[in-house]
Amino acid sequence: MEKIPVGILGATGAVGQKFILLLSDHPWFEIRELAASQRSSGKRYQDAVNWIQERPIPEAIREMMVKDCEPNLEGKMVFSGLDSSVAGEVEEAFAQAGYWVFSNAKNHRMDSDVPLVIVELNPEHLNMIPHQQKNRGWEGAIITNANCSATVLALSIGPLHKMFGLETVHVVTLQALSGAGYPGVASLDILGNVIPFISGEEEKIESETQKILGALDNHQFSPAPFTVSAHANRVPVEEGHLECVSVKLKQKAGPEEVTRCWQEFKGSEHELNLPSAPQQPVVVVSEEDRPQPRRDVWKYEGMSALVGRVRPCPLFDIKYVVLGHNTIRGAAGASLLNAELVLKKGMLSGLSAPAG
Amino acid sequence: MEKIPVGILGATGAVGQKFILLLSDHPWFEIRELAASQRSSGKRYQDAVNWIQERPIPEAIREMMVKDCEPNLEGKMVFSGLDSSVAGEVEEAFAQAGYWVFSNAKNHRMDSDVPLVIVELNPEHLNMIPHQQKNRGWEGAIITNANCSATVLALSIGPLHKMFGLETVHVVTLQALSGAGYPGVASLDILGNVIPFISGEEEKIESETQKILGALDNHQFSPAPFTVSAHANRVPVEEGHLECVSVKLKQKAGPEEVTRCWQEFKGSEHELNLPSAPQQPVVVVSEEDRPQPRRDVWKYEGMSALVGRVRPCPLFDIKYVVLGHNTIRGAAGASLLNAELVLKKGMLSGLSAPAG
Amino acid sequence: MEKIPVGILGATGAVGQKFILLLSDHPWFEIRELAASQRSSGKRYQDAVNWIQERPIPEAIREMMVKDCEPNLEGKMVFSGLDSSVAGEVEEAFAQAGYWVFSNAKNHRMDSDVPLVIVELNPEHLNMIPHQQKNRGWEGAIITNANCSATVLALSIGPLHKMFGLETVHVVTLQALSGAGYPGVASLDILGNVIPFISGEEEKIESETQKILGALDNHQFSPAPFTVSAHANRVPVEEGHLECVSVKLKQKAGPEEVTRCWQEFKGSEHELNLPSAPQQPVVVVSEEDRPQPRRDVWKYEGMSALVGRVRPCPLFDIKYVVLGHNTIRGAAGASLLNAELVLKKGMLSGLSAPAG
Amino acid sequence: MEKIPVGILGATGAVGQKFILLLSDHPWFEIRELAASQRSSGKRYQDAVNWIQERPIPEAIREMMVKDCEPNLEGKMVFSGLDSSVAGEVEEAFAQAGYWVFSNAKNHRMDSDVPLVIVELNPEHLNMIPHQQKNRGWEGAIITNANCSATVLALSIGPLHKMFGLETVHVVTLQALSGAGYPGVASLDILGNVIPFISGEEEKIESETQKILGALDNHQFSPAPFTVSAHANRVPVEEGHLECVSVKLKQKAGPEEVTRCWQEFKGSEHELNLPSAPQQPVVVVSEEDRPQPRRDVWKYEGMSALVGRVRPCPLFDIKYVVLGHNTIRGAAGASLLNAELVLKKGMLSGLSAPAG
Repeated sequence: MEKIPVGILGATGAVGQKFILLLSDHPWFEIRELAASQRSSGKRYQDAVNWIQERPIPEAIREMMVKDCEPNLEGKMVFSGLDSSVAGEVEEAFAQAGYWVFSNAKNHRMDSDVPLVIVELNPEHLNMIPHQQKNRGWEGAIITNANCSATVLALSIGPLHKMFGLETVHVVTLQALSGAGYPGVASLDILGNVIPFISGEEEKIESETQKILGALDNHQFSPAPFTVSAHANRVPVEEGHLECVSVKLKQKAGPEEVTRCWQEFKGSEHELNLPSAPQQPVVVVSEEDRPQPRRDVWKYEGMSALVGRVRPCPLFDIKYVVLGHNTIRGAAGASLLNAELVLKKGMLSGLSAPAG
Repeated sequence: MEKIPVGILGATGAVGQKFILLLSDHPWFEIRELAASQRSSGKRYQDAVNWIQERPIPEAIREMMVKDCEPNLEGKMVFSGLDSSVAGEVEEAFAQAGYWVFSNAKNHRMDSDVPLVIVELNPEHLNMIPHQQKNRGWEGAIITNANCSATVLALSIGPLHKMFGLETVHVVTLQALSGAGYPGVASLDILGNVIPFISGEEEKIESETQKILGALDNHQFSPAPFTVSAHANRVPVEEGHLECVSVKLKQKAGPEEVTRCWQEFKGSEHELNLPSAPQQPVVVVSEEDRPQPRRDVWKYEGMSALVGRVRPCPLFDIKYVVLGHNTIRGAAGASLLNAELVLKKGMLSGLSAPAG
Repeated sequence: MEKIPVGILGATGAVGQKFILLLSDHPWFEIRELAASQRSSGKRYQDAVNWIQERPIPEAIREMMVKDCEPNLEGKMVFSGLDSSVAGEVEEAFAQAGYWVFSNAKNHRMDSDVPLVIVELNPEHLNMIPHQQKNRGWEGAIITNANCSATVLALSIGPLHKMFGLETVHVVTLQALSGAGYPGVASLDILGNVIPFISGEEEKIESETQKILGALDNHQFSPAPFTVSAHANRVPVEEGHLECVSVKLKQKAGPEEVTRCWQEFKGSEHELNLPSAPQQPVVVVSEEDRPQPRRDVWKYEGMSALVGRVRPCPLFDIKYVVLGHNTIRGAAGASLLNAELVLKKGMLSGLSAPAG
Repeated sequence: MEKIPVGILGATGAVGQKFILLLSDHPWFEIRELAASQRSSGKRYQDAVNWIQERPIPEAIREMMVKDCEPNLEGKMVFSGLDSSVAGEVEEAFAQAGYWVFSNAKNHRMDSDVPLVIVELNPEHLNMIPHQQKNRGWEGAIITNANCSATVLALSIGPLHKMFGLETVHVVTLQALSGAGYPGVASLDILGNVIPFISGEEEKIESETQKILGALDNHQFSPAPFTVSAHANRVPVEEGHLECVSVKLKQKAGPEEVTRCWQEFKGSEHELNLPSAPQQPVVVVSEEDRPQPRRDVWKYEGMSALVGRVRPCPLFDIKYVVLGHNTIRGAAGASLLNAELVLKKGMLSGLSAPAG
């Protein structure tokens, strides 16, 4: 059976590299095109990239030529790990030219006609696409996934919002270095240190979670009616964002009910059996000092949110800790899930998810 | 002029070492006695101790003999850096025998007749001492200082409570390794990692801040009528606890008023000019990514709380970050301030603060 | 086909845990007994252990009862991860009682009748066993593997010694934290720091490599006739010892010949196809800034030595860098290879390596 | 008494910042000019710089205007912390225009008419200056100091060479992050890791130590007749290069004699009492696990080399460990000492070291 050809925009960057790893043995997709900035285009991938992953560059990718980010690539689907300084225009040009762009960049996330999707939480937001296409005169489309910290938070509060209703959410993040890209944070700034500030991060966490968990009615997104307050910190951890969360619920519930809610949560896309979807979107761990980023971040292939220390909060109703893999579930893996969902739902005319 | 002789209980431990550093050039006190467990007693200090400070052991201390923790030491004042497994009984024995014990241990902090004092915030709690002495039949007394994280939090919320009244406080801590003593946290547990749990810490933060900022009436402490919720994390930082705080105020105030409140706060003991008191208990820093533990923890000799990122909170009124030196201001330095205050107030019969 | 029952001595320690991971899906062996100190014996394994591995405790092991280290365990083969404070006597008692002990402890390594074996380098040293048994009046035997740093060094210099003859070896190690066991190095000692001393390490490196690469003649080991000088350092790395090596060869050779020597080296046991043996004992990497412990230590399942930066040395002939996994190849994995070799060679009467 | 006006080239960089700290309370010099690249010139210093030091920007410097690196600055002495990409030409232009340039850049270090000076070791190399001036037609001059690792090595082997004669030197470095400047090493590359390669470093260590300890005869430098072999590693340490050294001596000596040699070494410039010169250039520490970078690097204001673990070497004669502060003694502090020496010797016509 033929795999579906896909391209990667920003293929040499940190997110682009994760796309390559996640797509290299994918049952449905095959990487046929790599595109990047002019500094890299025209070179073989292995010569253009500063590869920082532990696994080596997949054999089939090493010798591929890197192209410009021009909308003349093979296939109809592209994954974007572009830097936000260029992602805005490039992604629009691709959508205009008929490509479906699965974007990890922040530029279009909050656009009024662009869905911001976590497949387990708001797959119905994809219904905005026909309106987006008509609105913009595009044959293609842009579908975004959320900021890494917002994704981890949303995965854990989403099931609670659906079952109990959220009133307020307070979150303090302890974010990994890989969230800043490469070279990212200078070692002299973070060795034996903590930085209590990440530019723009708190705003993204507050607004994106509301959009994801909000409603889509009449071609309009309305933010979920709860309030979020975020403090963001950078810590000397390689991968994995840890977040200390307190939530106030509309319908009261204790730690046991909340734990059961997470354990039973499957996500409405679950019956579709997407290849990259985790068995369980939220896993509750029982040890009193877990989850921990270095020890737990690669569990469940980095695609589940791990929740621990679920307990009553003297101020809110419940407090807990949640850990998620910021560059897998919080970046490339989320885009990939969105692409799988679009394909499985048959939204891309002429393309369908391979059987089996 | 003669200095006042003092002893140190638990002199070989991590807090004991900080007592030695802070007392070694003190204008009022002179270390005359070092006491520790039987493993160390009978040895010269330099042979008994595993000295982990960057500054060397003071010359005058190296050859001193370590004694048992028996109440037959020279002088009437002792500083306790004892481990909580023994501090309870030993400190009582000293108080019984007429010593004034300035204790950093947790054992007696929440006792109904033991003051838990931060000199700038609740010096009037020392008025409990005559009642404590009568109650217990002691000639001496026990005066405690708070848990390191609670101290840093209290220093920052205390001025706000006095001026605006606190309703609720939410705090997430990022705590340094030195808070766990020595050897403390295993390197394999924390290298490139974060541990979202510290045993007993959240409870101490919640209860101790309420006692410190509470009232003393009629020989009774009543906790301050605000609620605190704490999440505690261990991070790979050597010294300095960083805390992300959100507060709700009774009398509303914005970032500017709150900042001014901190900048103008002096503490009621200020006119007493205690030698170890910082010029300004709370210092507000203006850079958007500060305070940071490695870069700022030793500022103002580690005795001030550094506040940064003061901003409105979507859920509470104000959110900010505060950093304090956990083993100086949060431990040995706090005990020392308490001793200076007791002396300056003339509470110890026959002893008075040296002039000058 | 029936697997061979084995036991683990010191099953709750850091090395014991690695034995459990390596043995839990082993094609020939099955863990039937776990033994440890009295603190742990009588408890279920999951209650007795402070499990510090990233992979969870294997299902079949969790509920097993931990026994005392008494020689009444099922089977005839035991793996010892015992602490050196007890390993000496316990291992002898087991050998006396008829067990074959594959030991990672230092106690018997340098005994004149105990083989110290790296399967690719000196499998013929196992010929000492009949003499050991006769000498000690044992039915069982003790077979040791080397110190972690010595193993990594020996794997890289061994092939050179066999092909070119070594005159002198100079090595400076940068050793990982896991080499010190758990809790091991205190985080306050090593965060942002390097410790230029590891007790006893340099002596072990110098003497053990000579024994391994030495001859066995007439029931006597004679050390290899080259001299080794070692400096040992501890660095803040989780796993993987990196070593900077300079060697002087008897038969001169340049970087290319030396590289080819490593690439072609197979080890004399290679045709035996031991299940845990790496495809290639020494792998030469070409990037100028590799191998690096965090990025490369798990390559080849942690069983190969990775050599890089092979270049001429102004003083010696060749200098290079070598990295090895200290708790896999340098500890549990080495014992396991020794056991596989003994079995494959049919040295254990009544036991043979399962076919296939 | 009037201080001597000096300028700093590359004032906003990592080395430039250290120059500012070291010069800000200097008894002889006063910073009158700050110069940097066009990106910074025309701005106030505090706006142009990304200040990464723990101590704040000195008050007198904050508001100074940064100028271009053009040779029209006040005074006749400039300190250069320029990047090697521009240092070559800029420094020549200043020397041509009559300035004495005290340079930390690598560009001119190995020039045949440029002295490479460590004041305690080869002050007589300054005698090259008249020849340099004549040779190049300059009124000014360029005087360089060595690479940070080479400086630390030279300080420790220099006294041995003078007393016993060196035959061979083997060194493996464990170098701090600050040696790579700012932003320098990416945190993702070095967290929990070690990098066994620093571009160009081994070559500099090998050649610069030979020049420093070599002779100046007849306007010609001849390298010292010993051979050096270096391995360079980067480790996750903030400041302080640690080096494992083995030396072979012409005149044999044991650890005690070598230790005495270091303890008694004063340097020939000692009677000149330079303000920044350490009391003792080499300090021998006695603890078996010291020196350690995080704990010892700031001892003696970062200007002495700390030697430890002096012991016989099975291959060479002596092996030991040495630690030096790479950005103080190994960079800005070394340039400053050179300037102090030039002034004290009266080499700069019209300028003399202030009395007192």
